[in-house]
Amino acid sequence: MNKEFSADQAVKQMLPFAKKAGVETVWDRFEKQQPQCGFGTLGICCRICWQGPCRIDPFGEGPSKGVCGADADTIVARNLIRGIAGGTAAHSDHGKHIALTLLEISEKKAEGYQIKDEAKLRSVADKLGLPQEGRDLYEVAGAVAEATLEDFFRKDESIHCSWFDKTLPKERVEKLEKLGVVPGNINGSIAEIMARTHIGTDADPVNLLLGGIKCALADYVGMALATDLSDAIFGTPTPVKTRANLGVIKEAAVNIAVHGHNPLLSELVCDLAAELNEEAIKAGAKDGINVVGVCCTGNEVMMRRGIPLATNFLSQELAVVTGALDAMVVDVQCIMPSLAAVKDCFHTELITTMPTCKISGATHVEFSTETAKESAGKIVKLAIEAYKRRNPAKVNLSDITQTAYAGFSTEAIVAALSAVDPNDPLKPLLDNIVNGNIRGVVLFAGCNNPNVVQDHAFTAIARELAAKNVLMLATGCGAGAFAKAGLMTPEATEAYAGDTLKAVLTAIGEAAGLSGPLPLILHMGSCVDNTRAVAVATALANKIGVDLDKLPVAASAPECMSEKAMAIGTWAVSLGLPTHLGVVPQILGSELVTKVLTEGVKDLTGGYFFVETEPKAAAAKLLGAIETRRAGLGI
Amino acid sequence: MNKEFSADQAVKQMLPFAKKAGVETVWDRFEKQQPQCGFGTLGICCRICWQGPCRIDPFGEGPSKGVCGADADTIVARNLIRGIAGGTAAHSDHGKHIALTLLEISEKKAEGYQIKDEAKLRSVADKLGLPQEGRDLYEVAGAVAEATLEDFFRKDESIHCSWFDKTLPKERVEKLEKLGVVPGNINGSIAEIMARTHIGTDADPVNLLLGGIKCALADYVGMALATDLSDAIFGTPTPVKTRANLGVIKEAAVNIAVHGHNPLLSELVCDLAAELNEEAIKAGAKDGINVVGVCCTGNEVMMRRGIPLATNFLSQELAVVTGALDAMVVDVQCIMPSLAAVKDCFHTELITTMPTCKISGATHVEFSTETAKESAGKIVKLAIEAYKRRNPAKVNLSDITQTAYAGFSTEAIVAALSAVDPNDPLKPLLDNIVNGNIRGVVLFAGCNNPNVVQDHAFTAIARELAAKNVLMLATGCGAGAFAKAGLMTPEATEAYAGDTLKAVLTAIGEAAGLSGPLPLILHMGSCVDNTRAVAVATALANKIGVDLDKLPVAASAPECMSEKAMAIGTWAVSLGLPTHLGVVPQILGSELVTKVLTEGVKDLTGGYFFVETEPKAAAAKLLGAIETRRAGLGI
Repeated sequence: MNKEFSADQAVKQMLPFAKKAGVETVWDRFEKQQPQCGFGTLGICCRICWQGPCRIDPFGEGPSKGVCGADADTIVARNLIRGIAGGTAAHSDHGKHIALTLLEISEKKAEGYQIKDEAKLRSVADKLGLPQEGRDLYEVAGAVAEATLEDFFRKDESIHCSWFDKTLPKERVEKLEKLGVVPGNINGSIAEIMARTHIGTDADPVNLLLGGIKCALADYVGMALATDLSDAIFGTPTPVKTRANLGVIKEAAVNIAVHGHNPLLSELVCDLAAELNEEAIKAGAKDGINVVGVCCTGNEVMMRRGIPLATNFLSQELAVVTGALDAMVVDVQCIMPSLAAVKDCFHTELITTMPTCKISGATHVEFSTETAKESAGKIVKLAIEAYKRRNPAKVNLSDITQTAYAGFSTEAIVAALSAVDPNDPLKPLLDNIVNGNIRGVVLFAGCNNPNVVQDHAFTAIARELAAKNVLMLATGCGAGAFAKAGLMTPEATEAYAGDTLKAVLTAIGEAAGLSGPLPLILHMGSCVDNTRAVAVATALANKIGVDLDKLPVAASAPECMSEKAMAIGTWAVSLGLPTHLGVVPQILGSELVTKVLTEGVKDLTGGYFFVETEPKAAAAKLLGAIETRRAGLGI
Repeated sequence: MNKEFSADQAVKQMLPFAKKAGVETVWDRFEKQQPQCGFGTLGICCRICWQGPCRIDPFGEGPSKGVCGADADTIVARNLIRGIAGGTAAHSDHGKHIALTLLEISEKKAEGYQIKDEAKLRSVADKLGLPQEGRDLYEVAGAVAEATLEDFFRKDESIHCSWFDKTLPKERVEKLEKLGVVPGNINGSIAEIMARTHIGTDADPVNLLLGGIKCALADYVGMALATDLSDAIFGTPTPVKTRANLGVIKEAAVNIAVHGHNPLLSELVCDLAAELNEEAIKAGAKDGINVVGVCCTGNEVMMRRGIPLATNFLSQELAVVTGALDAMVVDVQCIMPSLAAVKDCFHTELITTMPTCKISGATHVEFSTETAKESAGKIVKLAIEAYKRRNPAKVNLSDITQTAYAGFSTEAIVAALSAVDPNDPLKPLLDNIVNGNIRGVVLFAGCNNPNVVQDHAFTAIARELAAKNVLMLATGCGAGAFAKAGLMTPEATEAYAGDTLKAVLTAIGEAAGLSGPLPLILHMGSCVDNTRAVAVATALANKIGVDLDKLPVAASAPECMSEKAMAIGTWAVSLGLPTHLGVVPQILGSELVTKVLTEGVKDLTGGYFFVETEPKAAAAKLLGAIETRRAGLGI
């Protein structure tokens, strides 16, 4: 294990306090788990039935088959695609929640919610081909919600998901159609993976991987709809200046962290925090209520409200260790169950809100769309009560924060480009890609993972690519890493961008009235918002009449960890992107699966995975992939 | 490992031939896997994200938490309910296929299929509350199919699955409704499990288990509909005499084994085998085509057509080792991938048929409802071609078979009882339970598992219970075990039943014109047919006005292995049944989960699991559970 845990200065600052308080952190637990099981790491442990557990000997001396006869290829493929199913289920559960809320808004049943961005809703209706004439906003909302829910519940699974067909280049849809991997509905795609990986079912690794691709494309669908409908309900993000890192937790405020992935609750917590601000001041917190974000719920409210980001996944426990966090309010996904033990060392209220995400030891305030305001109010009041119990002797504030710009939705990027060319907004971007001022585009996504030094690879790769004039976008915990490191600023553009990239970012930034360059890396949102980047790429591809796999665009997940990352990575490859992983995926036990995902899949989709744990080498390979694409286009 | 592999005489006879032919069997592979990983066996290995694999030290000296902070309770609960999701997906995938076929029949698009049992279809329509007046058979079929598909695709998940509400006692539905565990649709229940078990989501083991119960109840739904709609399409089974065990494979015939779980293909293979019989004779097989069954596809065609059963799960490879099996035709689930290697030692064609179940090395003949007859014909012809390549020097036929009666659908049991009391068919059964001639009812279900001696516990427990006057039902590989052991015969009733049970079975059998007692154990079908037994229990419960958990009825899975068994067992417990497992479930790493499933759940559903690997003790405990229920009823 690498003894440097994190590149994040605030983490380095806080870890001694954690130790002093007797708090076990994720890095402690990671160390205790060493050495981790080699069979699991290679993906060759099967626990799908109770004949097992079965393990394949990677050295070829022991068993080469499980009890049923499944070999390493089948076992690795099954494990991987079950992971994709888990990720797809997680993203789309969130997406379904948003779509159902839009339906309730359309029926005027969801007090506390409204359609904040009518233009976005109408553009979604257009995209889905839904008629709007003679329909009021609520009728359009209802129609959009119903059409979207069809993508979860469609009976005729031979019909493509609408959000698939309507958001991708035609050529890409046809390519994937020919492979038989276009999902008809999301829930069915998840169930299909679980069925085909049952003992004694699919035992052809390539067939299994194609099933995984289909499910991953359902994940794309669940993501695209979650993002766009969230924008309609909560507003499409526009550029906003805020701050990031643990220093955003303030001594003189009631500090409430919103953590998880679903904006439905956090948006209302922000609303109620404003409403109840006076109560906090009365309770003695002269700065009132300070809502901060953790993980992707943090990214959601950062994008739309400029709420400061406290931290990303791996350091979530340290927000509590500050001793000044009064409530950690969580919804779903990537919430360490350890928070229950950490908060026991402090006064912090840990509040779970979703019926399918409880944590033993936490306070549960059940959230539903109908009672959203009431629940959010209760939560804020619990935080104020907790503030009164805060023990000053246990407060260890961080002084580390960085300026961060967020809010770069697809629409915000197009708007900035419109300032350069109002008639043809994509032209300035495209021209600069063609003339080489911008060599290409890299989307950073994915998690933190204690297998590597937190945030390090993100920032190291980005600095390399910046110097080589690569335009960078980021989401999720990757965006968190960049925000905390001060790389989402015009100053970072000045400091790190190559000359031609700097000139382009400056021209666009100044035309857009930002009186300086665009930030070095554009924050596109939470990990469910990766489809924003696809929307930009699709617009470019459609403009020049090529498929996505021809563009000088690549994806990078230097610290992939969750099943959601497995799903995202797989659809990125399926859409044609070279996709970098900075953590070794748990598939190496099968040479066949490894070869298919890193080579064979190229012939099918044009995309492929590559693994590189060393940041400089990763940057070089990303750049190489981009240059190959440029050569293919003859630019 | 116990060196006696199987209680099946034919297995004992064939294993030396396997060895001689250089065939590696499931028992060889099981031995090679020893010792199996203790972490996996206890359920305390987590591979849900790439921070892991994480393992909890069961001795409390090493790590007590995974990297994210999940403890043993959370890890065990997550692993278990993901298994339930896998089982539910498998069963319901098959159920959906049947429902879609019924829909196609209603649209006259499914050549080769018809509604063979109109009365059953109409009774299903009645059960679902669908109007029939003025509707012809095809319209009713369409309405039943649509209503059934709603249970997979319903958008409003707060509405109960129809097949749930309409097939269970009202009191049971209300009890489960109060627990919040009634599924609104099947696919959504599976997706929900995958979402809530994602890294950093549900970390409350009891909440997770309740989620597992909800998914398992969706499995019940998928099963109930699969069984009843299969009956409508292919005919409701009636008692039929046939034979079981490897001796059913005949030298002078083209032997085709149908193996897997879905009757859609096997029914047509039987049809086409009859049509093409002359071709087989022309090819030199003077006895023509001999279709035999393996596993639950075998049970399906045994129940409806009296097709002999070659063997059950664990000995499937040995059907090929006879050297006289010309084709092994498989659909989905419990098909050992090893068959590809075994058939390479012989002339046998291994034919996969489903797009989500391919096996490397097999011949794939894609099956779809539209081209069903064509595919079935192609398959039969492949078998005839293979027959011509059969090598007599490699033929090692078994001479072991037993008579077996099958076909005891709910309707068939009621029909037999009607012969005793036409006005009140359930009365004779109920009276004899009340007066103690029958102490209670045990349903044997589930798989084979090489952790125990094949078939042994099934037959040993059954002999004990028979002597104690317990009425026994069986499905799946359990039914296969009994059929092969000769326990599904009137002679077994004579030999093993206690006096009062014998008298009842004889009275019913003779009244029903069988000129002898009913078989000792009634074959109710494949493992997807366990709901037939629930239908009998529900009828009894409704008749006397009690809930299912008051009846002297228990379930037993002496060799549970598959995720389907995890799902079935969990819904059996959820419906109120004491449920015996003869294999230690992989949950012991959590005392909490173990206690909830064996004790705590009693307070919620009235049912519970108990584990007993020793057959005599298991029989005593099943009997004890029954007697406790009798005492509760005051009988």
